[in-house]
Amino acid sequence: MSKPIHLPPLRRGIIFILSAPSGAGKTTLYRAALKGIAGLEFSVSLTTRRPRGAEVDGVDYHFVSETKFTAIRDGGGLAEWASVFDASYGTPRAPLEAAVAEGRDILLDIDIQGARQIRDKYPDDAVAIFVLPPSFAELEGRLRGRGTETEDSIQRRLKRARAETREWPSYDFLIVNNEINRSVGELEAIVNAERLRSARLREGFAPWKS
Amino acid sequence: MSKPIHLPPLRRGIIFILSAPSGAGKTTLYRAALKGIAGLEFSVSLTTRRPRGAEVDGVDYHFVSETKFTAIRDGGGLAEWASVFDASYGTPRAPLEAAVAEGRDILLDIDIQGARQIRDKYPDDAVAIFVLPPSFAELEGRLRGRGTETEDSIQRRLKRARAETREWPSYDFLIVNNEINRSVGELEAIVNAERLRSARLREGFAPWKS
Repeated sequence: MSKPIHLPPLRRGIIFILSAPSGAGKTTLYRAALKGIAGLEFSVSLTTRRPRGAEVDGVDYHFVSETKFTAIRDGGGLAEWASVFDASYGTPRAPLEAAVAEGRDILLDIDIQGARQIRDKYPDDAVAIFVLPPSFAELEGRLRGRGTETEDSIQRRLKRARAETREWPSYDFLIVNNEINRSVGELEAIVNAERLRSARLREGFAPWKS
Repeated sequence: MSKPIHLPPLRRGIIFILSAPSGAGKTTLYRAALKGIAGLEFSVSLTTRRPRGAEVDGVDYHFVSETKFTAIRDGGGLAEWASVFDASYGTPRAPLEAAVAEGRDILLDIDIQGARQIRDKYPDDAVAIFVLPPSFAELEGRLRGRGTETEDSIQRRLKRARAETREWPSYDFLIVNNEINRSVGELEAIVNAERLRSARLREGFAPWKS
């Protein structure tokens, strides 16, 4: 007479976008989220920059030449791409779209240019989250604390960060990154809530068709 | 030079709406949510039905006559109202709007008619959540398990429940109530995520205006 509801409900995967001005602590949050939030997958980006430290090609990034990057981009192989300072970064299109079709959720660490492209291309499947540091002074402190950059480079990043900060109202959610565990918890709430959104279930979810 | 961001950010309160076909376990979930989720407030409804058990006037409900209910409703004193079987229920408008203006979040346990009225009146401030039992058989079992109703009454409720079930796609979120603790956790994720929605912060939240 009555069939059980399928659990987990059939739904499309979600593309979670994490953007922030540099110095907001986004990379730490991004890594903690991939480790701590169940079912969030990493997307291996294409980049033209050189590997740093222990980065492994095909795992951390696909490291490619400018020529190859341009060819892939012009062939429609990227879901989004952006040039940041002296390097280009892009998200391969095929694995992203496969994940969405198969109901797997992806967490993308991308900048404002890239976020806009993803939201334009996948308006129903993308959820955009902006991360802010508690204050601009805190951001400056974090940037200087790295100790790896020249004053010129720091000033350039600060100017850029200040401009990027104004972009938060165009994102769906805002996390003020005061404390990393709290921020991971907030991101987890967003992920778990978005998984329950009824609009994502409509295609395959039909309870009680009896 | 730079001011700290106000925490918690200034925002309007949110009206969370919980609806379900009868037998979905909504009342248990509603009570557990008010107890277990920080900062969710109860709205005392107006009703024309008689008090049951230990219910206290002004605490559980405002118990009023049909005449008084109609007068308040016609005077614009209700944010929503509905007639269910032999009684009417309504949500007083003034305390609800005060809560939203003051940034306090309310959880409303209301039916589909009432939910539609709230969403129409407060499209930016309402978040609607539908609760389903795992299956129709489970719903029937829960309704019969109460042991307080005639077969006629049960059949009437089952028919109504089946019709109400079809309403879930018009809600923002769907919780399938398999296990109460899991459902409370899902509701908490929705509450905490919606509190981070940037659109709710725009009015008063202006980081880094320096």
